[in-house]
Amino acid sequence: MDDTLTITERTRLRRLPERGCFDRAQINAILDAGLVCHLGFAIDGQPFVMPTGYARSENQVYVHASAASRIARSLARGLDVCLTVTLVDGLVLARSAFHHSMNYRSVVVLGQARLVTDPAEKLAALRGFTNHVVRGRWNEVRPPTEQELKGTAVLALAIEEASAKVRTGPPKDDEDDYQWPVWAGVVPLHVSAGSPVDDGRVLAGMPPVDVTRIETLFPT
Amino acid sequence: MDDTLTITERTRLRRLPERGCFDRAQINAILDAGLVCHLGFAIDGQPFVMPTGYARSENQVYVHASAASRIARSLARGLDVCLTVTLVDGLVLARSAFHHSMNYRSVVVLGQARLVTDPAEKLAALRGFTNHVVRGRWNEVRPPTEQELKGTAVLALAIEEASAKVRTGPPKDDEDDYQWPVWAGVVPLHVSAGSPVDDGRVLAGMPPVDVTRIETLFPT
Repeated sequence: MDDTLTITERTRLRRLPERGCFDRAQINAILDAGLVCHLGFAIDGQPFVMPTGYARSENQVYVHASAASRIARSLARGLDVCLTVTLVDGLVLARSAFHHSMNYRSVVVLGQARLVTDPAEKLAALRGFTNHVVRGRWNEVRPPTEQELKGTAVLALAIEEASAKVRTGPPKDDEDDYQWPVWAGVVPLHVSAGSPVDDGRVLAGMPPVDVTRIETLFPT
Repeated sequence: MDDTLTITERTRLRRLPERGCFDRAQINAILDAGLVCHLGFAIDGQPFVMPTGYARSENQVYVHASAASRIARSLARGLDVCLTVTLVDGLVLARSAFHHSMNYRSVVVLGQARLVTDPAEKLAALRGFTNHVVRGRWNEVRPPTEQELKGTAVLALAIEEASAKVRTGPPKDDEDDYQWPVWAGVVPLHVSAGSPVDDGRVLAGMPPVDVTRIETLFPT
């Protein structure tokens, strides 16, 4: 398998191409570090962008939806989609307003979603969603019933036409601006987990979930 | 001014309508708490979803782009767009895989972007971008030059056809599942700021930025 994706007319970066990356390992790492993607599709020319959970397995990104939903029915018809994952890593505070920026990692995957019909692939994808949130959780919880499986549509998008974009490091000011009297640098941002809040009906003796099992925050 | 937006065929929630909200104050509060939006638009039927900074002022959301970029030129032509902001507030861990969910606040704004040509509105929007990141920063930094203004396209999207969607609270398990032996509840997630990292060329005596001025993390 190639480690670098083919750049297409649609994934070629026109702006700041030095931030672009087509390396599969880096694309996968960004996808694995995100919790929510933004899925874009157009119906009668009107674009819609919906946040939704997802999980990657091999060269596929999986999303799910109610089988009865407009999004599941539209996507299963073979609509073109764009799936974007963005992680904001820091605020880049320059000496000029113009050079303010953000540090981030993002991935864009283009293609047509495929409705997953094979029962084994579908179950594996559902296991992936649960474990992508909390490592190993699938084995602890009540598995889906036939009825639940029937009501859930799982869609797969191949990671073939895709790109990553990354900005890191300090601001880049114009040389003349380094004498401007203001602090400049980066404020790192990160997502963290607070203490688990039980739902009031937890059985005696059940320990709260260990937050270091949250795969996106504590990758192995 | 109405406080509740008119529900259209495109903003009506088909799934879980109880999570929907068309209240302008709540829509504004969610927009003001976000740092990055996902902007969707379709070119020749192919949707693209791009992460970008933004700022709200009154009933407008502003985004900016290089004036030479494909996105600025496409949007200025009056393309339909969908601007989505999503804040993830927690992981909802149920006793069944099926009832796992997330707590979140999201806003979707539909419409056509307008290229901002009035110099005063454009400058106000640029001030808004900077201050939305760090309160009051605009007055501390070097203002944009004529050349920088010319190279920056500012686009406005009216908050007219829009909706918010919010999930809060504990998981909702099936009654039979409450005897399942696993912890269930919510793990709160939040974004926090680390210590500012200077860029190595900060003038003597310049104090690091006070992170409580980050408006999205510390709203007034």
